[in-house]
Amino acid sequence: MSLLVTGSIGIDTVEAPSGKVVDALGGSSVYFSYAAGFFGPVRFVGVVGEDCPADFLKPLHDHPNIDMAGLEIREGSKTFRWHGKYHEDVNERDTVAVDLNVLAEAGPVIPEKFRDSKYVFLANTHPALQVELLGQLTAPELVVADTMDLWINAERESLMGLLERIDGLVLNDSEAKLLTGQPNVVQAGMEIAKMVSRFVVVKKGEHGSLLFADGGVFTFPAWPAAGVVDPTGAGDSFAGAMMGFLTARDSIDTATLRRAIACGTVTASFNLEDFSLNRFFQISQADIENRLKQFEELTRF
Amino acid sequence: MSLLVTGSIGIDTVEAPSGKVVDALGGSSVYFSYAAGFFGPVRFVGVVGEDCPADFLKPLHDHPNIDMAGLEIREGSKTFRWHGKYHEDVNERDTVAVDLNVLAEAGPVIPEKFRDSKYVFLANTHPALQVELLGQLTAPELVVADTMDLWINAERESLMGLLERIDGLVLNDSEAKLLTGQPNVVQAGMEIAKMVSRFVVVKKGEHGSLLFADGGVFTFPAWPAAGVVDPTGAGDSFAGAMMGFLTARDSIDTATLRRAIACGTVTASFNLEDFSLNRFFQISQADIENRLKQFEELTRF
Repeated sequence: MSLLVTGSIGIDTVEAPSGKVVDALGGSSVYFSYAAGFFGPVRFVGVVGEDCPADFLKPLHDHPNIDMAGLEIREGSKTFRWHGKYHEDVNERDTVAVDLNVLAEAGPVIPEKFRDSKYVFLANTHPALQVELLGQLTAPELVVADTMDLWINAERESLMGLLERIDGLVLNDSEAKLLTGQPNVVQAGMEIAKMVSRFVVVKKGEHGSLLFADGGVFTFPAWPAAGVVDPTGAGDSFAGAMMGFLTARDSIDTATLRRAIACGTVTASFNLEDFSLNRFFQISQADIENRLKQFEELTRF
Repeated sequence: MSLLVTGSIGIDTVEAPSGKVVDALGGSSVYFSYAAGFFGPVRFVGVVGEDCPADFLKPLHDHPNIDMAGLEIREGSKTFRWHGKYHEDVNERDTVAVDLNVLAEAGPVIPEKFRDSKYVFLANTHPALQVELLGQLTAPELVVADTMDLWINAERESLMGLLERIDGLVLNDSEAKLLTGQPNVVQAGMEIAKMVSRFVVVKKGEHGSLLFADGGVFTFPAWPAAGVVDPTGAGDSFAGAMMGFLTARDSIDTATLRRAIACGTVTASFNLEDFSLNRFFQISQADIENRLKQFEELTRF
């Protein structure tokens, strides 16, 4: 089965209580594809500018499961940059600077050989662009998207058009409340579940996630992480592992989806333990499987 | 086995988006004992003033599992009153008015026939009073206490003295962070677990709870409640069901404790569904057992 991701590639500067990285590898499609790569092949689509250092994406180019044929190096453009600073409580952060650069230009073109992808993740971007990217695909079977408060506030009509066309939506609890006007996150999730064809995952950061599917609600705690260095990319890593697992199993029934969310949870928990993708570079699928077993043990009652 | 609770009896006025109750039954020992009563006998200790209406505690007096021999009606004193107002998001509230009244006076005397209690819950009050109450017991085997930010800030030494003498502590996530100065709740819980002899439960409200016991961390989501009317007393109901279950099983091993926390979670989830103890008056232990089975189902992966 084939999994495709479209999203950002970022040159990130991150400050946190335990340190700082400058011009580090980041971006939604980067975190997503590396996390998905623990489970099987993934097709990468994203754009950088000509300023992007030649070896910046080497960990992805070198990865046996990541097909970089969808990487565009756009002449005359500059790469997306983000600078964030986490508080003493790393669940809160400020954006110090953001330069959209190439992300504010035309979207990527999905390579011909990727167009038959069955499993598709449209990472957060303008919903009109997500619809356009979806239009380039010939036979998608499970399309899942992420979104953010900016589009909910400023591009609601466009976003609603996207929701009609996708199977699953992944978003934060604050975004779910914003989208529905519901202060109760469970109510919010149930309402959004009616806007898409299959499921909604509401991410609650350190508090875990909720799945709305088959008319039911399923709840997952987070991995109890005692040492959080840098939460950047945790949501995209979660989504990457979730979609990677579904693709590997080639199933989207609710039982598989629940297992996929648990995989997403523990995979994201590794990502928190160091800056950028550094922790991912040290682990294998066996580490994820071991932690998944531990996660099962410490959530049973 | 015998379970004893010491705590407050409150005349509560509660405003919430879905309505309001005036002079309603409340207080920590009230919620606790009613929740514990679903699982077995509970010995009630608390004080009201002479202003307390004669039938105010009728639901407890009429309850076959609640022994009210520890109720003191103090002449010349007034009953504790609390008035709270919940926000549109009912996870936040303001205290409109609080009159400690009898709670600011001498503590209760534990009746002679209650002094051999094996399982003991000391609900939130001044830690010196909690120690004094504990001193009235002759053979406690599992002593669990609750506390709050006020005592952490103003009576830390006294609180530390209490912690040395108890087996378990139940507190909120913000209180756990305050007590330890740790912004990470898992780190905070692990540190507090070293201050007591057996376990710590960190309550996270709508996000569930964490158990620190046997050197490990266990994590529990909340019941995904779509219709929250009034969260008042949820924490005390949680503790009551947890302690009631442990007492009924007469076991405090970690596996039993984990099951007890799940019982606390679902019992508290009923309490949220109406003002005061009104929802509890409509349910039986069978309803709790059914919801516990559903909770198991929707948390498995």
